[in-house]
Parts: sequence; C-alpha cells; structure tokens
Amino acid sequence: MDGSSVSPLPCEAPLAMMESEKTPPRSPSQHDMPPPPDEKRYDDDDDRVWNCGAWFEYILVVVVSSILLIAASVLTIFWTIYYRKGFNMDDPKLQFNLHPVLMIGGYITLSGFSILLYRICRCCSHLIVKLCHTFFHACSIPCIVIGFMAVWDSHNQQQIPNFYSLHSWLGMITMGLFALQFVLGFFSFLILLCCENATYKFRSTMVPIHASFGVATFMLAIATAVTGLTQKAHFELGENYSQTVEEGIIMNSIGVILTGLGIIIPFAVRRSNSPANCKVYVTERI
Amino acid sequence: MDGSSVSPLPCEAPLAMMESEKTPPRSPSQHDMPPPPDEKRYDDDDDRVWNCGAWFEYILVVVVSSILLIAASVLTIFWTIYYRKGFNMDDPKLQFNLHPVLMIGGYITLSGFSILLYRICRCCSHLIVKLCHTFFHACSIPCIVIGFMAVWDSHNQQQIPNFYSLHSWLGMITMGLFALQFVLGFFSFLILLCCENATYKFRSTMVPIHASFGVATFMLAIATAVTGLTQKAHFELGENYSQTVEEGIIMNSIGVILTGLGIIIPFAVRRSNSPANCKVYVTERI
Repeated sequence: MDGSSVSPLPCEAPLAMMESEKTPPRSPSQHDMPPPPDEKRYDDDDDRVWNCGAWFEYILVVVVSSILLIAASVLTIFWTIYYRKGFNMDDPKLQFNLHPVLMIGGYITLSGFSILLYRICRCCSHLIVKLCHTFFHACSIPCIVIGFMAVWDSHNQQQIPNFYSLHSWLGMITMGLFALQFVLGFFSFLILLCCENATYKFRSTMVPIHASFGVATFMLAIATAVTGLTQKAHFELGENYSQTVEEGIIMNSIGVILTGLGIIIPFAVRRSNSPANCKVYVTERI
Repeated sequence: MDGSSVSPLPCEAPLAMMESEKTPPRSPSQHDMPPPPDEKRYDDDDDRVWNCGAWFEYILVVVVSSILLIAASVLTIFWTIYYRKGFNMDDPKLQFNLHPVLMIGGYITLSGFSILLYRICRCCSHLIVKLCHTFFHACSIPCIVIGFMAVWDSHNQQQIPNFYSLHSWLGMITMGLFALQFVLGFFSFLILLCCENATYKFRSTMVPIHASFGVATFMLAIATAVTGLTQKAHFELGENYSQTVEEGIIMNSIGVILTGLGIIIPFAVRRSNSPANCKVYVTERI
C-alpha cells in the first residue's frame, strides 16, 4: 500500500509553514551565489511574533540547561572537595581529583554553554555568536589538557596502568573528535570567513557535519563521564556502593544531571517547530 | 559590531536552496490547513537527482550503521556465551547473561534499525515506514521486559541490592522515556491518523519532540549500556581488567561499537544538506 497515493500526510502543512518562515524562496540560479548584501538576516526578522508559549519554552529550555550545566560542575567540585579531600598536586590521589572537575568543566559545562549559545543569543549577530562559540570551546581546551595530564601523572605515580578501561577508550575517542571538530570548525568558519564568497559553498557543506558531530562529541563526553563515575564509584566505594551511601547518591546524581544534559542540550539546539525558529536556523548554519 | 550589517553570511544561500527544495512555498492562509490530496509527496519527487557522491554517502551511512547495529548484538551474544558460560534460567548467574543480550538487542539493535528506517527506506511510502518503525519498536518491548526481569530475578536470588548504581538509575530513566515515547508516538502518529485532518496540527507539533526525544532515548540507552559494561568488567574481571585481558578487550569493543552508533545514528537521521534530503525531511515529519 502506498500511503502517498491514498492521501498526503497532513503534517506536511506545518513543515511547509516552517520552511516559508525561514527565507523567501529563490530562483535556481541564486543557489550558486551568496545572498545580496541588502538581504534580510534571520536575526533581523522583526516580523516574527513570539507569543507567550514561545517565550515560556525559550526561557524554560535556556534556564534548565544553564542550571544543569552549572550544577554538573558545582556538584563535581563539591564531591571532590567534601568526599575526596580536595586537590593537592603533591599527592597523586588528590591530584587525580582535578581530572573529574576539569573534564566535566571543560567537556560538559563550557562546551555545553558553547553549544547552547546558538539558542541563548537570539538578539546578537551571528558573527558574535560564532566568536563566543569559539571562545568557550577555546577555554575548554586547557581544562581538558590539564584534566588529562592530572590523571596521566597520577596513574603513573601510583603505577596504575592507562588505557585499559572502556572509560579511557571512550575518553580518547572523545578527545580525538573534539580536537578534529575544533580545528575544522576554526578553519572553516572563522579563517575562511576572510574570503567568504569564495568559500561559502565549502563552509555550508561543513555546517550540518560540524553541528551533528558537535552534538555527538558532547554526547560522547557524557558517555565517557558516566563510565568514569561508575568506575570511580566501584573503585572507591566498593561494597558500600550497594548500601546506597551518601557519596554514591551524590555520584549518581552527577551522572543523572549529565544524562539530563544529554537530553536537553540536543533538544534545545535542534528544536525546529517552535516559534523560536530563528535561532534554530542560525544553529543549522553555525 | 553587527556582522549582519556588514555583509550577510554566505551560507544562507545553500540553506535557502535546501528550503526551496523541500516544498513549494505556500500563502499564509495555507498554513492552517493540510495540503490538498493531489499535492506531490517528497517521496515522489522524481526530479531530485542523486549523484554518485550522494549515493556513496547514503550507502556508506546505511551499511556502516547496519553493520554496527548487528555487530553490537552479535559481539554481546559471543561475549556472554564464550566468556560468561551462556544462559541457564536455573542458575541466577547465567540467568543474568540474558540481561545484556536482550537489552542491547532491544534498546540498541532493534530501536536503532527502527530509527534508521527513516534513512534506509527512501523508496517506500511514509505510512509503511511509520508502520515498520512502530513494529521494530514493538519487537524491542519484550526484549526489554524480559531483559529487565532477568536481572531483577537474578539479583533477588543472589540477594544483590537493586537500584543503587548509576547504571540502574540511568536504566530506569531510559525505560521511562522509552515507554513514554512509544505510547505518545503510537497514539499521535498511528491512532490519530484515522482522523488526520482534525489532528494534523497536534501531530505536527509532536514531530520534532518525538524525533528529538527518540534520538535522546537511544543515546541514553547507549550511556546506560556503557555504564553497565564498565560495572560488569570491574565486578567480573577485577584486577585482571587492568592487565588488558581478552575479555576486557571484547567488552571495551562492545562499548566502542555502541559509542560509534551514538555518533552515526543521529548523524544518519539528522544529515540535512546532502542530496539525500528527501528522507531527512521525512524524518523531520516522522
């Protein structure tokens, strides 16, 4: 049975509505050239009406995401200081504590805000959003590097082997993908902007790839973090973990917050049928 | 500095091309009603040209995704039979082995193929794709239920506490979200199809929510699976895990395959600027 021959699916109508909201349609010949300088930007589209529901959804998503992003780092810092005796570079056990704090701070909080910027900054120009996106990601690099060095050095001092666990394997994949994303993103979207007319075709091809892999890297970081938390809980708490001790609950809560971010961040930047469309389209263009 | 006032970003042009490819633009009054019955479906759009690159990308994504989806289940079955002594309902330790096999089979392989259908079936009608999507998800339900019962019963017989670990917490969230998705998806997209004209607005609102949460549930299932694998590796292998034993490598490989799926499945169904656009739009409509 061919459903299309029976009747068209009604959800095409709202989709078409979304499409016509994006930009005025162009003739085929216009596809091969950048838009004229006097053309309206989505960001400048002042005839887009935001009703109460749209504002409510926008504020809810942004506020909840921001709270979870900050909570992930704050709770990790609290856990390491209160239950794991804080940080000390002279003690390899306490040196290790830098690892979860910096990795969650860099990969989750900073990278998460960097992704979320495309949703938050609905009144800024696209160029500024891109620069802030790069800045946040650039800030996360030292966190990740120091976080990696902390665990590497701590393991070596305690003669604990490296790269045997699933957590370390996933961590390596995440780091590789993050580095690739950063380098490609930086060259494609900032450097090549200098000769934008000559490179727009290449950069526009990169947009959905960069966006998809960006969200995938974020999700991978979450998968790496939850395996790390599980591993640490079994190492440090042992049998006590199954007795639902306080520290176990805190560690699980960090994992649940990270999982919550794994749901809300892709949702926040992908949401495509809300009246907050303008920024979702901006995300598509990164 | 307002980037938009200087010059518009050139990547708007290809985006506009994508938009104009989707459907012909409609007048504002048409937004409030379903499309007329004689209107072309995206599926029937025979003037869309697929070049070699598009076909290569389509085949690559579909083949790699399918191989990884099948490999996840096959490797898990191999691991449980070869290293964990297979299945026996009379022995709680061997009864447990049903848990990873059925959970990965249900949550990852069946659900993964169910999501991937929107990319694979580019020649079928949308209704058939939806029915197959429901069928695959329906098949995964008994796997998940029996997989859950297996671990529950096995733990109770061995007097191992339940619901203390991050893996179990994430598993509960994943199950809740999966159940919610299935019930909402079933009612919204199949039952309400009977009175499609009256319900299209509600269903079209549900489309991006269902799609976003569907991919999020899949990613959550992967996060749950990798925490489960980490936990099991530490329980069963103990100190041997850090000696890079064969079983540890197999378990890590399952985790890496699952992570690979976490990258390629969202990429496969979200990819929006490839010449395979028609199916991506179908995904948007689910």
